[in-house]
Amino acid sequence: MRTQVAIVGAGPAGLTLAHMLHLQGIDTVIIEQQSESYVRARIRAGVIEQTTVDLLDEIGLSDRLHRQAMVHNGFYLRFDRTTHHLDFHRHLGRHAFVYGQSELVADLIDARHTTGRPLHFDATDVRVHETGTDRPVVEFVADGSAQRVRADFVAGCDGFHGICRQTLDRGRTAVMERTHPFAWLGILARTTPVTDEGMYCAHPDGLSVHSMRGPHLTRQYLQVPADTDLGAWPDDRIWRELRRRSAADDHPELETGEIIERSLAPLRSVVTDPMQQGSLFLLGDAAHIVPPTGAKGLNLAISDACVLSHGLGLYYATGDRTYLDRYGETALPRVWQAQAFSWNLTTTLHRLGDDQFDWQLRRARLKRWTGSIDEERALGEIYLGLPFPTPWRP
Amino acid sequence: MRTQVAIVGAGPAGLTLAHMLHLQGIDTVIIEQQSESYVRARIRAGVIEQTTVDLLDEIGLSDRLHRQAMVHNGFYLRFDRTTHHLDFHRHLGRHAFVYGQSELVADLIDARHTTGRPLHFDATDVRVHETGTDRPVVEFVADGSAQRVRADFVAGCDGFHGICRQTLDRGRTAVMERTHPFAWLGILARTTPVTDEGMYCAHPDGLSVHSMRGPHLTRQYLQVPADTDLGAWPDDRIWRELRRRSAADDHPELETGEIIERSLAPLRSVVTDPMQQGSLFLLGDAAHIVPPTGAKGLNLAISDACVLSHGLGLYYATGDRTYLDRYGETALPRVWQAQAFSWNLTTTLHRLGDDQFDWQLRRARLKRWTGSIDEERALGEIYLGLPFPTPWRP
Repeated sequence: MRTQVAIVGAGPAGLTLAHMLHLQGIDTVIIEQQSESYVRARIRAGVIEQTTVDLLDEIGLSDRLHRQAMVHNGFYLRFDRTTHHLDFHRHLGRHAFVYGQSELVADLIDARHTTGRPLHFDATDVRVHETGTDRPVVEFVADGSAQRVRADFVAGCDGFHGICRQTLDRGRTAVMERTHPFAWLGILARTTPVTDEGMYCAHPDGLSVHSMRGPHLTRQYLQVPADTDLGAWPDDRIWRELRRRSAADDHPELETGEIIERSLAPLRSVVTDPMQQGSLFLLGDAAHIVPPTGAKGLNLAISDACVLSHGLGLYYATGDRTYLDRYGETALPRVWQAQAFSWNLTTTLHRLGDDQFDWQLRRARLKRWTGSIDEERALGEIYLGLPFPTPWRP
Repeated sequence: MRTQVAIVGAGPAGLTLAHMLHLQGIDTVIIEQQSESYVRARIRAGVIEQTTVDLLDEIGLSDRLHRQAMVHNGFYLRFDRTTHHLDFHRHLGRHAFVYGQSELVADLIDARHTTGRPLHFDATDVRVHETGTDRPVVEFVADGSAQRVRADFVAGCDGFHGICRQTLDRGRTAVMERTHPFAWLGILARTTPVTDEGMYCAHPDGLSVHSMRGPHLTRQYLQVPADTDLGAWPDDRIWRELRRRSAADDHPELETGEIIERSLAPLRSVVTDPMQQGSLFLLGDAAHIVPPTGAKGLNLAISDACVLSHGLGLYYATGDRTYLDRYGETALPRVWQAQAFSWNLTTTLHRLGDDQFDWQLRRARLKRWTGSIDEERALGEIYLGLPFPTPWRP
């Protein structure tokens, strides 16, 4: 099989890239190890920046999103038993959109099917070869038969634990990493959301997060030590702790209800630099991980896809590789801004130390965020999305 | 001897408080362990907030300051060999004033002498007693004779290593503290300042600071490990490192010259809460220490004096102790904002870790400060001075 760009991974990065390349008449093959139903059901992020939505508008993939997404102006912050609303829309005239990643992925898969271009689910034994040359190869097995795709370029969109990341020559790649000593214990529950937009509750004993997935469906999180055993957290302990950390004088107590799902997610910050080696480009989680605080992961994946689509578009239109070979250099400053934003939120909202100094410093920062319009605007600029580094096509 | 308020320490906090009380007809005695010439020559901070200058205007102590201070709009930030100017004045219409603490203290001492009210320098064996009662006593020896001052209140303005702080009952006081693993190696040198306002140079290997004390006099600093031996830093090593960290493509190399003075200062963050016990009130460094980054120490001392002057003024005018007994509660939020600001500057400008993640995160924050007007305004609000918590008199 011959294609121009082989895309490994059918998540937001790979599918969006494929669509932007399709619109430029560039041929792609997508290879995904999971089944279509698994990919469509995979629960991940849920907050989409205005900047990302603007791009989806441009490439014609936002119809259902505009019908179904909840449009948010910002988020709530609660501390000292008092609730504050950061209303970024008021200052910047832009929004954030709450629309599950699984919904967006479903839209993207449907769009792909409509183009008739190849999308292989359930691929096994995926291997990427000869990325040091200008004729890289992706091999895999689908429907019981071995496939071999020869391409001009490979886009590695298969996540942090994927194949593409593992094929990097570690001698030529810096992997910069921070781990945090805490994790997020997350639940999906049949309860009414406590506020009409997402809420971070900063408490001396740690963070709780309360986000909505529907009128009677919530996703909520507790900061817990990184080595937490989920078995030690029966339902009533989770609810007790969520209620304690979110206790406020200006709202009724949190509603409890059936917990449908629970999970434990580590908080991790990773950046790979460069994001390209030869004809292999890494996008999204394959290149970098941000902690969930601030909801930047999905948006960065789309930002990467935008930069690569621009570079590939220019290359296929004119033969000029300038932008293409600056892919990482162009994408990384925005990645680091997202890292710095997530770091700022993470260190302000979580309990980091045992002492009063830690808590009072965090409180002072929270008071600034809720007390200074300039601080609120500065947070909003990033929360609603800095501009993408390039347009999606030349 | 009988007075209304005994003030221990003739630094900016004590002298400004004494003057504000004098203007309200409240009697004070100031007791200072050092000699007058020592206090007048003591080199300390040099950047005075607009908020502090506004207060000095109100109490009539800013004539010489307005004639001699350098009026700054903000400061310079240099990183990636490029110089950026944070121009807070452009956004906020306010300034910072570069005027040595020794100059301000000289003005304050002159003003005190003019009032004819007592100011005892060279006091030895200073002791503070009976602060649990409403008739506290300060004892000391001056001019060879023992003195005993009975007062209504004692204002502890004698710094972090002073007597007043030591008389606190530690069982009823939280001392919140952070030490940093680095120090500032400072020099005073006969050289021409490299920029017309102060400059912080953030370098992967650590911070350098370049501030002016006159047309041919500079004060410059290097981040060094906390356990540094000054003997290992001969002049040429200091200049080499200052030049290396401040190297830029848009300015000529740093001028070198005679080093008149050198020092090593640890970076420390301390807050005492409450700032009052019985009839003893702590002000300035006696109550809290901020790192030099951001130049908040002197300004906080004046802010504390303002809050206490207001509370004492109300008490003596009406007998109402409400504001007086809320002194710490009223002063502390601004103290914590200064701590958070200094912390933000300190962690962004200094090298904290050995890894690239640390440097790239710092770079991303520096790019935001220099690239977003909202971030610049938010920094400026605090650099030029948040409002004082209360007016200086009721």
